[in-house]
Amino acid sequence: MPKYKLTIAYDGTSYGGWQVQPNATSIQALIQQALSTVLRTPTGLTGSGRTDAGVHAMGQTAHFVHDNPLLPNTLFSLNGILPKEIRILSLEEVPDSFHARYSALGKTYHYHLHLDPIANPFTKRYAYHVPHRVDIALLRQAAAQLVGTHDFSAFANEQHKGSASKNGVRTLTRIECIEQENGMRIEFEGEGFLYKMVRNLVGTMLDISSGKIRLEALPEILASKNRKLAGRSAPAHGLFLMHVRYD
Amino acid sequence: MPKYKLTIAYDGTSYGGWQVQPNATSIQALIQQALSTVLRTPTGLTGSGRTDAGVHAMGQTAHFVHDNPLLPNTLFSLNGILPKEIRILSLEEVPDSFHARYSALGKTYHYHLHLDPIANPFTKRYAYHVPHRVDIALLRQAAAQLVGTHDFSAFANEQHKGSASKNGVRTLTRIECIEQENGMRIEFEGEGFLYKMVRNLVGTMLDISSGKIRLEALPEILASKNRKLAGRSAPAHGLFLMHVRYD
Repeated sequence: MPKYKLTIAYDGTSYGGWQVQPNATSIQALIQQALSTVLRTPTGLTGSGRTDAGVHAMGQTAHFVHDNPLLPNTLFSLNGILPKEIRILSLEEVPDSFHARYSALGKTYHYHLHLDPIANPFTKRYAYHVPHRVDIALLRQAAAQLVGTHDFSAFANEQHKGSASKNGVRTLTRIECIEQENGMRIEFEGEGFLYKMVRNLVGTMLDISSGKIRLEALPEILASKNRKLAGRSAPAHGLFLMHVRYD
Repeated sequence: MPKYKLTIAYDGTSYGGWQVQPNATSIQALIQQALSTVLRTPTGLTGSGRTDAGVHAMGQTAHFVHDNPLLPNTLFSLNGILPKEIRILSLEEVPDSFHARYSALGKTYHYHLHLDPIANPFTKRYAYHVPHRVDIALLRQAAAQLVGTHDFSAFANEQHKGSASKNGVRTLTRIECIEQENGMRIEFEGEGFLYKMVRNLVGTMLDISSGKIRLEALPEILASKNRKLAGRSAPAHGLFLMHVRYD
């Protein structure tokens, strides 16, 4: 059976996250419904990973299989059915060995900060508004300490209550603080991320830049593997899944 | 009585436009309510001009008078009451001779086009999505013909049924087509604008770029002063009032 890869953008504001779940409309469920309608057969979708409620994506990926070759207009038919907050950016056939999650070699996330005393009506859905002064030099020093291979357990939320503790070692190949109009975006690139890791890293970096946590405490926090010693979690609406890397 | 000037940004998506009116929530009404609450006295507000339902602003201006000098935190109190779609960017005392509308020497509008076969979830509220090919050279040639002093009556909607026809001569000092990520913005600068003039100019420029109206027809359209000979009106959500210029 032919296998297909989707690349997907979505404004996560109004949804309960990527993953199918009770009591909330998920992006995965809406795309599965659209696929099942367009392909005239119930079709399941496997994503590269979940994104939480409110998190956005400009390059989420997913795969599905289908009995027959797709018609050339399938992409446009899907976008015709889906709400405008969700767009399929590309649809391509992939080898049978491809798996949206297990073939992924790395991911890139961007976190947007709006740094100004007054909020901005046009970025409020897509950037975290920090009205007080942020010490950007400190933010960059924290980023420099966090990049590389560490046990990031102190920056991971438990995904399910009572889940067995897993290996928290991950490698971040890049953390970059890039100043942009009205604020900054922090780019994270890594082979893999723990649950809520990017938001917890951003929250901790902001706590460091405001003096709530000392920069010198970062090695202890990492060594503790204790979520309670790291900083707060930055809100979902500043976070974008930008790219999932494959061979 | 001291007089004050406000500079205001708003996301016009959910409002019935600037001006107080029955059956719709207007931005002017919301700011008047907030002012009246913060200043503890009914306070009227005079804007530089109206913006239509769905039109955005990053630099709308307005003035009001008040019996007493304002407290230093008035700006923050106003923003605390107003919905997040509306932000007061600055509040300053002005001479008694200042009038938000009659002292205005010019205005700058930007119109945003998203040019791509596939819509974008993040720009859909703030840019007009044109999925077909746009001939940018033709767009620029049309802009070059429209800049300057003309009778723009063919590009003006009647503001009220049965309103007496007025002088339609206006001067556009600049029309610039600036390519940007995923599309273009068209910047309009002029001393004054007729009702719906920018949206009608953009719609006509797009009709020219798609071949629906010939570029050579522009002089005839201007000379006709006939709204029906010009092109369609571009939708409100791509339009931003950026700046009102004073001495």
